[in-house]
Amino acid sequence: MVEINGKRLLSDLHRLRDFGRTGDGVVRTSFSDIDMAAREWLRKRFADAGLAAAIDGVGNVFGTSPNPGPALVLGSHSDTQPRGGWLDGTLGVIYALEIARAFAEDPGTRDLAVDVVAWIDEEGTYTSCLGSQSFVGDLSDEVLEHANDGGETVAQAIARVGLTGVARAALDPGRHVGYLEAHIEQGPYLEELGDQIGVVTSIVGIRSTEVEFIGDQNHAGTTPMNRRRDAGVAMFEFAVRLRERFTAIAGPTTVWTIGQVRLEPGAASIIPGFAAAHVQYRDPEDERLAALEDALAGVAADVAAATGVEARVRRERDPILPCDMDAGFRRHIAAAAERIVPGGWREMPSAAGHDPMVISHHLPCAMVFIPSIGGVSHDFAEDSLEADIVVGCEVMAEAAASILRG
Amino acid sequence: MVEINGKRLLSDLHRLRDFGRTGDGVVRTSFSDIDMAAREWLRKRFADAGLAAAIDGVGNVFGTSPNPGPALVLGSHSDTQPRGGWLDGTLGVIYALEIARAFAEDPGTRDLAVDVVAWIDEEGTYTSCLGSQSFVGDLSDEVLEHANDGGETVAQAIARVGLTGVARAALDPGRHVGYLEAHIEQGPYLEELGDQIGVVTSIVGIRSTEVEFIGDQNHAGTTPMNRRRDAGVAMFEFAVRLRERFTAIAGPTTVWTIGQVRLEPGAASIIPGFAAAHVQYRDPEDERLAALEDALAGVAADVAAATGVEARVRRERDPILPCDMDAGFRRHIAAAAERIVPGGWREMPSAAGHDPMVISHHLPCAMVFIPSIGGVSHDFAEDSLEADIVVGCEVMAEAAASILRG
Repeated sequence: MVEINGKRLLSDLHRLRDFGRTGDGVVRTSFSDIDMAAREWLRKRFADAGLAAAIDGVGNVFGTSPNPGPALVLGSHSDTQPRGGWLDGTLGVIYALEIARAFAEDPGTRDLAVDVVAWIDEEGTYTSCLGSQSFVGDLSDEVLEHANDGGETVAQAIARVGLTGVARAALDPGRHVGYLEAHIEQGPYLEELGDQIGVVTSIVGIRSTEVEFIGDQNHAGTTPMNRRRDAGVAMFEFAVRLRERFTAIAGPTTVWTIGQVRLEPGAASIIPGFAAAHVQYRDPEDERLAALEDALAGVAADVAAATGVEARVRRERDPILPCDMDAGFRRHIAAAAERIVPGGWREMPSAAGHDPMVISHHLPCAMVFIPSIGGVSHDFAEDSLEADIVVGCEVMAEAAASILRG
Repeated sequence: MVEINGKRLLSDLHRLRDFGRTGDGVVRTSFSDIDMAAREWLRKRFADAGLAAAIDGVGNVFGTSPNPGPALVLGSHSDTQPRGGWLDGTLGVIYALEIARAFAEDPGTRDLAVDVVAWIDEEGTYTSCLGSQSFVGDLSDEVLEHANDGGETVAQAIARVGLTGVARAALDPGRHVGYLEAHIEQGPYLEELGDQIGVVTSIVGIRSTEVEFIGDQNHAGTTPMNRRRDAGVAMFEFAVRLRERFTAIAGPTTVWTIGQVRLEPGAASIIPGFAAAHVQYRDPEDERLAALEDALAGVAADVAAATGVEARVRRERDPILPCDMDAGFRRHIAAAAERIVPGGWREMPSAAGHDPMVISHHLPCAMVFIPSIGGVSHDFAEDSLEADIVVGCEVMAEAAASILRG
């Protein structure tokens, strides 16, 4: 069994947390100064572990094992949400580093090839899963023009941090046989059920629909109620009816959220002539996502008919399809988990998106989850038990060794 | 009967429209360069009419008749909404100018004293009814610190346009016996009923309540629906239930509007932990406004109980009370209207706020409305028929002469 150094693992996790630490959380969005400083620290740490390490031309930190393939790529992302938790992404990066070190220290695993990566912008400050898109060769010129809220494009960010023209780490089909990522669950299931390890079966599909309502902008004092075509009123009605309709269609793990709304002109004394709501919904089954999308359009049409306000439904052109994790890898992980925490693991879908959504179309992927305290994530309060953190790394190391041994 | 020069009236209205004209509308917010240029043009125009004219220390253009009192103050505001119509405010200012000129040209009215004013910032770019607050002596240091959306305070704006230390026009109790203002109706009633003149009975009271919902911010993928405390869901439910409750309580002219909402953090993949809605409601009766305010708090509490999301209701400390127009002045206006458009006028409340809300606590006030085409206002499309514009000025002139003759 591979010997993980739990103290070293936790120490590195805490050291990485210091880059952008804010209260208990971390603010380290991709391409920020503090993100790049963290990446330089990671690069050195990868090099100290004996890997050939570099920050690549898109900002990924990639450390290549000196051993010949077959190699597993292990890692996660080191950028955070605008108000992020300390383990989201970070956990999988430091696991990978620790596993590379542990393999090198153990005569039984010394010859195994583990390449370690810290992807950039999984969180989509500019564009989701930027680093893994680059790795698999999906990075189009169009994606390089995606901008952050400040209007800076990916290409401009790359130039600003001095990476223009630097080579990008790329999937090597002659070397790479798979990608493994560990992550906090970000939900409550493992904790609630008393399990320490989640073996991810699939990553849910995500669809987003923007619904716009076009009414009449007018004076909020002088326009009688019965003459109004208030776009805001239509949007509120839509949101409440959508909840009822989606509840009726939902499967056991369906979720949906209206996270963004807009009223225009957005003044206290003016009846909104325009309103928009962004609806995001997730499910492991694409058929159910399609049914939800149709139901949403139906609710919008019903509300338009009831309120006299025009509704426009902007369906997403490229929804994120549900994607399955590699069945063989899953068996290795399950076996490792059963050895280390007998009966204390379960299979589960991932309700959050991760880089394997991109990578799995090019390379077999699998993921390991550890419990999130209270299910909290994308929040400064995000945390996991130290014992769970160490056990997760042990399972991941065992699984990686077992996969590479074939 | 006072002879109004309709051609001169319309010509000056169109000339003033040119300051900030944008399409059919006008962008001339208070203290902007174009607003100050318009004020300088008005000052000259007032002086040409034989008035002692100056831009005062808060930006009001005030023209004092050379005649001794008793004097009526006539006018309105010359600033506009961020996307304003061409007659809102402007109409009453040019009416006042034209009436001063017409009185001076007619031997029968030559001795009557009419002081003419173009108030500043009635629209509240910095603070509502700024100019009239200054005129009646209500301008506190606190109000001078009110800021526009760009963070500039009233005091800073006054300094920027070079008016610091300049004297402010002030109500002279020994001279001023009342204030008259003409305005477009901004609503559909006169046009619908085929009337040309509205004699304003009162200005409705306005209350605003900010309702905040505090739930749990969390990941929009990994948090199951039954574990969410989504502040946005609570806000949508509140908006729909409020509509039902208010409809049950509303009087014949009650209106209410949710013109501003906020979800935080406002990201597609994050469950909103905070939501806020700004509710504004208007009625001629303060008792009804109080009942609406209580009902609103009740709905918020019901929604909090139903959703598990905390609700906070921030009642306004200084709501705008309904205010009555002077009964004597109203009789003069009604008599003038009946002479000029027999049967073609009606009494009506004003559903919009105007400077008389401030002035009427210090000086008797009255208002004359003319029809708005389609009831449209606070919009570039705002307009009125030329025939209605001229008739309104004739009624106003007759009423002013009749009031001053006593």
